[in-house]
Amino acid sequence: MEFEAELKAKVAEIEEIIAKYLPKEEGYARTVIEAMNYSIQAGGKRIRPMLMKEVYTLFGGSGSEVEYFMVALEMIHTYSLIHDDLPCMDNDEYRRGRKTTHIVYGEGIATLAGDGLLNLACEIASDAFDTDADPVKVGKAIKYLFGKSGIYGMIGGQTADIEAEDMDQRFVDDARLLYIHENKTGALIQAAMVIGGILGGANEITQRTLSKIARNVGVAFQIQDDILDVTSTFEELGKPIGSDLKNQKTTYVTLHGLEASAKEVERLSNEAITLLHTIPYDNPFLEELLKSLISRKK
Amino acid sequence: MEFEAELKAKVAEIEEIIAKYLPKEEGYARTVIEAMNYSIQAGGKRIRPMLMKEVYTLFGGSGSEVEYFMVALEMIHTYSLIHDDLPCMDNDEYRRGRKTTHIVYGEGIATLAGDGLLNLACEIASDAFDTDADPVKVGKAIKYLFGKSGIYGMIGGQTADIEAEDMDQRFVDDARLLYIHENKTGALIQAAMVIGGILGGANEITQRTLSKIARNVGVAFQIQDDILDVTSTFEELGKPIGSDLKNQKTTYVTLHGLEASAKEVERLSNEAITLLHTIPYDNPFLEELLKSLISRKK
Repeated sequence: MEFEAELKAKVAEIEEIIAKYLPKEEGYARTVIEAMNYSIQAGGKRIRPMLMKEVYTLFGGSGSEVEYFMVALEMIHTYSLIHDDLPCMDNDEYRRGRKTTHIVYGEGIATLAGDGLLNLACEIASDAFDTDADPVKVGKAIKYLFGKSGIYGMIGGQTADIEAEDMDQRFVDDARLLYIHENKTGALIQAAMVIGGILGGANEITQRTLSKIARNVGVAFQIQDDILDVTSTFEELGKPIGSDLKNQKTTYVTLHGLEASAKEVERLSNEAITLLHTIPYDNPFLEELLKSLISRKK
Repeated sequence: MEFEAELKAKVAEIEEIIAKYLPKEEGYARTVIEAMNYSIQAGGKRIRPMLMKEVYTLFGGSGSEVEYFMVALEMIHTYSLIHDDLPCMDNDEYRRGRKTTHIVYGEGIATLAGDGLLNLACEIASDAFDTDADPVKVGKAIKYLFGKSGIYGMIGGQTADIEAEDMDQRFVDDARLLYIHENKTGALIQAAMVIGGILGGANEITQRTLSKIARNVGVAFQIQDDILDVTSTFEELGKPIGSDLKNQKTTYVTLHGLEASAKEVERLSNEAITLLHTIPYDNPFLEELLKSLISRKK
């Protein structure tokens, strides 16, 4: 219960930081700005900025530059959800219990709202150069962020994912699924943890350890997502369940069954925690957070 | 005819620069990369990178950092066309005589290709920090680029534009049209000329002059676009004509007629050229280029 209270307080902190960077809803562009703010304020779990901050402070980081990257990363995550929910992609009408952006604002504005958030993320990340932080670290963090969110990261994963949906499902194998999980979900978790390390002062070897931990967490997170799609309810998830089955989508669960999927989540989780213990700093909250992400029920 | 030959040579130079930065079509993300390259190699006029380079050299710039911005800007322009052509936006099947990206690759991949180009533009612009160029100028150029391409620039203009299409056309007035033209079209022309000035070493007063010239060119360019939609042919434009009338879209031409529109284009053009002459450097090619943009027949 103590963890839950700490988690709640930290989410509230992050909400305050994000609120400072939201654009004002005014002028001729008002509608697209409203759609951007509607989407980013939809009450996500703020996992990515939270992981970034925790890793940053773990290595002694205490500046303001991390805030710019926390907000930029959450904006990138949010834009990807908006575009992913569009009828031409996953065609989802609900997310986190609320109607998705294109249902409320229409597809055109939703497309532009996603574009607007990605563009703003680039502006905000670049603003970190105006802080007292080491510009070499800021430059490295920007490269890492947009590397992981681009065609060799998240967008690559989304491409393989929507192509997999149109394929003969017999050709959707473990290798493709792993690529999708590592990139569609893992890449931004890696951005969170590794950028926290870069800015906080972790050395390169430790940055690689952080990258591996995040990769495991990302893949486990996605398999857990597929498990919940079978075992959860609309009320718990805030979105329709059983959609993978309905769409005849190949997932780790359809390939290996629920039991083996749960075991794989546990294996990935144990490996991540073992790796975390190789880092010579203690952060019990971060450990709890990683565990809670993997074994989450919603 | 000399101008045409020089123009052709300069376009070829820019094509070579762009080609260096195109991602390789391989791996699981191959399809989205193909779609990105298909779109950016669709044979545009390369006006924006050309203007940037001309202004850059006008002020004595001779480094390689301008290339990163030329390519980033062309990628931003290209992504905006891909998303703008989508069925949920302008729903265009042809551009420059070729099928649009979503017609060839489907809407999902087209959406991701646009995202991928914007993301890559951010990466490439940030790479300019790795050159010998003054990092203060590079930082300023990045801010200007993403300011002009975001919600207070191009995306704002596109928002007002698609909203205007759904409005009672009696409420689409000169003020809204001017906002749309200044932002949807003018903003990236401003990015081209002002970033050329920033990187090349123009002072702040001159940067403002460049901004005004570019704004006039952008607005004139858009009014000329609306004129051509009435007076040109499919063969000349490479896309269907008469679409504004068919879509009952309010334009400068529907508000004021062809004659007054042509006069406004001339007025804006003359003002731009007068402003250009206040800059104490001669570049006859740049002057010809600006004139040709405004009075273009396709």
